[in-house]
Amino acid sequence: MFNMKPSIPKGTRDFSPSEVYLRNFVKEKIKSNFELFGFEPIETPSFEKLKILGGKYGNDGEQLIFKILSNGEKLSKADLDSFNNKNYSQFANSISEKALRYDLTVPFSRYVVQHQNELTFPFKRYQLQTVWRADRPQYGRFQEFLQCDADIIGSNSLWQEIELCLLYDKIIKDLGLTGVSLRINNRKILYGFSELLGFENRFNDFTTILDKLDKIKFEGVANELTKQNFPKDKIEKIKEFMSLEGTNKFKIDKISKALKNFKISKEGLNEQNFIIDKIEESGGLDSIDLKFDLSLARGLSYYTGTIFEITLPNFPDIGSIGGGGRYDNLTENFGRKNLSGVGISFGFERVMMALQKFKLFPKSLNNRVQVLIANFGSKTASTCNSILKKLRAKGVNSEFYPEDCKLKKQLSYANNKKIEYVVLLGEDELKNEEFILKNMNEGTQENFKISQLESIILTNLKNN
Amino acid sequence: MFNMKPSIPKGTRDFSPSEVYLRNFVKEKIKSNFELFGFEPIETPSFEKLKILGGKYGNDGEQLIFKILSNGEKLSKADLDSFNNKNYSQFANSISEKALRYDLTVPFSRYVVQHQNELTFPFKRYQLQTVWRADRPQYGRFQEFLQCDADIIGSNSLWQEIELCLLYDKIIKDLGLTGVSLRINNRKILYGFSELLGFENRFNDFTTILDKLDKIKFEGVANELTKQNFPKDKIEKIKEFMSLEGTNKFKIDKISKALKNFKISKEGLNEQNFIIDKIEESGGLDSIDLKFDLSLARGLSYYTGTIFEITLPNFPDIGSIGGGGRYDNLTENFGRKNLSGVGISFGFERVMMALQKFKLFPKSLNNRVQVLIANFGSKTASTCNSILKKLRAKGVNSEFYPEDCKLKKQLSYANNKKIEYVVLLGEDELKNEEFILKNMNEGTQENFKISQLESIILTNLKNN
Repeated sequence: MFNMKPSIPKGTRDFSPSEVYLRNFVKEKIKSNFELFGFEPIETPSFEKLKILGGKYGNDGEQLIFKILSNGEKLSKADLDSFNNKNYSQFANSISEKALRYDLTVPFSRYVVQHQNELTFPFKRYQLQTVWRADRPQYGRFQEFLQCDADIIGSNSLWQEIELCLLYDKIIKDLGLTGVSLRINNRKILYGFSELLGFENRFNDFTTILDKLDKIKFEGVANELTKQNFPKDKIEKIKEFMSLEGTNKFKIDKISKALKNFKISKEGLNEQNFIIDKIEESGGLDSIDLKFDLSLARGLSYYTGTIFEITLPNFPDIGSIGGGGRYDNLTENFGRKNLSGVGISFGFERVMMALQKFKLFPKSLNNRVQVLIANFGSKTASTCNSILKKLRAKGVNSEFYPEDCKLKKQLSYANNKKIEYVVLLGEDELKNEEFILKNMNEGTQENFKISQLESIILTNLKNN
Repeated sequence: MFNMKPSIPKGTRDFSPSEVYLRNFVKEKIKSNFELFGFEPIETPSFEKLKILGGKYGNDGEQLIFKILSNGEKLSKADLDSFNNKNYSQFANSISEKALRYDLTVPFSRYVVQHQNELTFPFKRYQLQTVWRADRPQYGRFQEFLQCDADIIGSNSLWQEIELCLLYDKIIKDLGLTGVSLRINNRKILYGFSELLGFENRFNDFTTILDKLDKIKFEGVANELTKQNFPKDKIEKIKEFMSLEGTNKFKIDKISKALKNFKISKEGLNEQNFIIDKIEESGGLDSIDLKFDLSLARGLSYYTGTIFEITLPNFPDIGSIGGGGRYDNLTENFGRKNLSGVGISFGFERVMMALQKFKLFPKSLNNRVQVLIANFGSKTASTCNSILKKLRAKGVNSEFYPEDCKLKKQLSYANNKKIEYVVLLGEDELKNEEFILKNMNEGTQENFKISQLESIILTNLKNN
């Protein structure tokens, strides 16, 4: 027998009905806007072969992958030499062939290559699925969480970057979030900048450190750069450029002048200009402030062009609530070259936290069951059940209380479940072909004829 | 680099957009009917602690649980003695603390006990979540699949069994499936029957074998019973009762007479009677044939009262498409006694197979993107994009082709994505403030004024 309080693994969560309603509300907003913009859903398995996931997330990421233990006989092949040498990672690989999804990007690349002959390119897909990371749980960080990605693969048209900005804007607007910043940069500009300062051979080190700017401020970045032997005068120069203030136009001009001799960054600046101009021309963004920001780096080395990140300046604790960018070589890992793609991701759990903080959930989400029919025992039960059937045929979410216990208990059940209407139909009422309709929110009640029941309830529900 | 065709683990599936649409259609039907009947959604984590899942599924089930490998240092505690003794299951337990959900029932019981102080009883929950089993993949059997469960816990009212029959009926009706049987029995009747034949001490052996009836026919059941030393004359008696034909009333009468001296079975027969009578009284079932069937056993030993199973007699290959029953002691495992519950489950993947076989999916599910605006280059692109914004503001799923390539390619894109309308707006059209609307299904096209665009498209979409 079980002698302790049952519990769930750290970093995971149970969701009660009221939480599921809120989560579904946000999922639906994201999904319907993805579809509004022409994206179509795919789903991939929860676990992938280890050789698909291996080597894709860097050393740190690799540590956070949940591996699945092979079954039965396959365990007999455990590599005990590795175990004895304390090489636990190799030991793990000898008794595991698959692992839980770490993100949606790698499974998506695998999907595109595997199904390339069935797909129409440019292929626009969205994916709302759970991912798992063996991370230390902390505020806003879980071991199991939902990711929401939209990507277009198979074209390098910049109209897609524009689409993604508009898509972010539309979702943010629908969710009611305000004061949102969409930071935009281009890895090509950053590369030109590293050329200007003469450390283009250390470009990835540079962007990996720069990516921490939000968390450790420029002082922290400067310290790390110093530690990694970037010269002091260059760090000064970096600071100067990273803290440029002004309109997008002003910053682009300033940087264009500084980088005018560097071909790759010129390309990046042209792209940036095009995106910003075209968004302006088509009427601008409604709910988001689009900001060219040279200090945006995005740690992931697979980005090759435009990069995005959305943040809530009035809720800085949660970091970015989404990001993405252009990648030219993602599917190369799986044997398919020259498929440029661009995508964005929503940090679903953080969006939930923001909506909670700013109280942006509609109040109506929580009362899904609309009518309770009280139970007054066997003499009226069958009548109650035929009424129930009629209400349901009209699409009214409703139920019959299963036991003929005290009315007080039944009403408290309705109250706890936030059911707005209770139908009371006891023997006296039945004799008069009547019923009592109790409005739980207003504490009022009124008698009506049973024959009117459906229309009365439908009218009341419609007026809510 | 990657030198082989990328693939997914056996028993798992990728779902393309057209498949996701079909799956979502069925999920939505099930979900909305669960809510219509007053059930509310919960979600539990994908993995549970091993000690929660352990010992719940019998030896065979236990083998099919996917265990998750512990990370890093924890692997150093691997139990090598067990490994050397080829006790791989104990070895596995020494390097694993959690496992993927095997079903929704055990996580639900854990949830109820863990959250009992926050819940309103009777607690009606539904859950649509993935489960994982390390089963040998075969026709209709996967390692990752969706389960759809609805349960009510905290009351032993038989009105709940009735509700669940009505719920099955409503969902089957909405899905358009015909000729469906809902077999119903009661474990108490079966118990009385085992008393009659004098092997009540082997009740679980008996029901476990009887449960195979669908697969191995009565001959197979008889063989297994013989092998397990059930006497020949009793096996004959079993056959006689199991093959009873006639109306529900007739069968109940016949069995009542035979079992009149056995208290527990009398209780079961009364319950059965009540359920069948009340369903009749409230108008019967619309799309399902309700059949009392003494041979229905349900292998799981936790059922204690009514048991259900729904089958498609005209698609016998897939076995049952759902089942459930009353359980009195499920939460006892987690330290909470006296919580009677009853629930049903839908075999989602089998329902999908049945709808596919009988061609019951609506045709309209596959064209989610409604309008493509063709790309004729930079001179008209901005106009196209402002039109796009207006269409989306009206909720029209639409997109702008990202490249100004040959029209033929753009139209073939629309065709492949099953987009019904294409807007053509080249430089000539722009000069005349016109656009061409191409109907891809009918192969027709017509000129309109740009100012009319939204209303023309909305009218066309509405008339579909």
